[in-house]
Amino acid sequence: MTACQARINALLDHYLPKEEATTPLYQAMRYACLNGGKRLRPYLAYQSAALFNTPAQIIDPVAVAIELIHCYSLVHDDLPAMDNDDLRRGKPTCHKRFDEATAILAGDALLTLAFEVLSQTDGLQSDNCSTNLKLIQTLSRAAGPFGMVQGQALDLAAEGKVLSYEQLCQMHHAKTGALIAASVQCGAIASNASENDLEELHKFGLRIGLAFQIKDDLLDVLGKSETMGKKPGQDVKNQKCTFVTLLGLNTTSEYLNTCYTQSLIHLAPFGQKADPLRSLAAYIVGRET
Amino acid sequence: MTACQARINALLDHYLPKEEATTPLYQAMRYACLNGGKRLRPYLAYQSAALFNTPAQIIDPVAVAIELIHCYSLVHDDLPAMDNDDLRRGKPTCHKRFDEATAILAGDALLTLAFEVLSQTDGLQSDNCSTNLKLIQTLSRAAGPFGMVQGQALDLAAEGKVLSYEQLCQMHHAKTGALIAASVQCGAIASNASENDLEELHKFGLRIGLAFQIKDDLLDVLGKSETMGKKPGQDVKNQKCTFVTLLGLNTTSEYLNTCYTQSLIHLAPFGQKADPLRSLAAYIVGRET
Repeated sequence: MTACQARINALLDHYLPKEEATTPLYQAMRYACLNGGKRLRPYLAYQSAALFNTPAQIIDPVAVAIELIHCYSLVHDDLPAMDNDDLRRGKPTCHKRFDEATAILAGDALLTLAFEVLSQTDGLQSDNCSTNLKLIQTLSRAAGPFGMVQGQALDLAAEGKVLSYEQLCQMHHAKTGALIAASVQCGAIASNASENDLEELHKFGLRIGLAFQIKDDLLDVLGKSETMGKKPGQDVKNQKCTFVTLLGLNTTSEYLNTCYTQSLIHLAPFGQKADPLRSLAAYIVGRET
Repeated sequence: MTACQARINALLDHYLPKEEATTPLYQAMRYACLNGGKRLRPYLAYQSAALFNTPAQIIDPVAVAIELIHCYSLVHDDLPAMDNDDLRRGKPTCHKRFDEATAILAGDALLTLAFEVLSQTDGLQSDNCSTNLKLIQTLSRAAGPFGMVQGQALDLAAEGKVLSYEQLCQMHHAKTGALIAASVQCGAIASNASENDLEELHKFGLRIGLAFQIKDDLLDVLGKSETMGKKPGQDVKNQKCTFVTLLGLNTTSEYLNTCYTQSLIHLAPFGQKADPLRSLAAYIVGRET
């Protein structure tokens, strides 16, 4: 994962516009992306492609696009009108470091840039064109009004309410699961994987996406602010319905393990080649940040 | 133009998600789009395609995507942290009708949906795939950090400052010119037009884009709130540098006519077929709203 982080940081540095003096827009875009992120989603895309022996440089543009979309979503989610967060990975959030208008625009620009990166046709064969369109379709669907944006809207609408278990799962599926699952799928789409393989990897992505969120809920109760780079206890403060408030600590921990075990079933068809994805699933449930 | 408006309204109604009760997201997306807009940019795409006898149904998805991008930009531009506008076409702006968080998310969702619409591959031949990628490239470039978003950032940075004539042109070129020019180009790209024709149409689009903005500046001084659906005098109130503050009323009016005349030069190669585009240019300089 460290190698993937270095690769994505270099690629983001390449694709992001260089800072210039007239407006803070480009500086804010770079601040929002080049901030020590885990690069979990690009890693999933690379490792999913590696199952099919697809070289990493084929995946570079889609990995960059995925991370740009993820970073835009964090900038907008942190805004005062949304989650109103002051800190992100131990540093001031984008609207705190710059201002609200700049943060809104930086998010808009990162989202738009993601699709520009995926549309670059230089040197593409026409059969690669149809692959790129499928990548754009998969990511826009996962990020838009039927995916991530809907998830954030459901999250805001849920504040102060008690959700059913199904409603909580639906919200997290849209908010984080869709983009994580799309990241796994994109590595396979770019490898011209079979429908069967795409299906298994999609299911794997959805399970680890859910595991990721359950772990987040646990960390908000059990985590330490030094390792997390943000204050724990935000969910209780914001009266959020979480797996912990709904199921209690013990059942939530058990449920996390169930999701982990279930995710591994979908990797069985890929044999030893899927070991990096297995390690990643283990990392997601074991992480402390 | 009335027929185009009806066509785009029906298409937007089809592509936008239907309202549902859990969150106000879909309702806000529809509110932001189905609001009596002029549909100027889709009209440009259709009429540019008509120069090459391309059927309107080929242009439908790109016309919808262009209008979705335009509507998202209005929602975000109106936000309190940006231009802080309460009225848009005589009705409450999206964040006034709903709330700020919903308006931010609705804008994000409209932008993402635009690219989803352009990525739909059902029934596309592989040579159409490369056309769709070029459309996505053209629109993302015009809308993103080198186009519309940059223009809005330049606009915000200019508040209370006196810009040079070149700086004012650069700002408007990015803020409104880029998407208007891209709309004209997209009709031609979808028609597999020659590089020469694309170039002329791009130049036509940039001239009428500039004319559109000059007219906006004039209307802010000379317009009546009943016909405009918003209060005039906002530029002076917000201490904005405009063509009127920079050049005075008379010179600005003359400059508007110069832009109009220059735009027509680029339509000469297309003969009588370009008459609807000529009428549109005349409409832009003559409009009262």
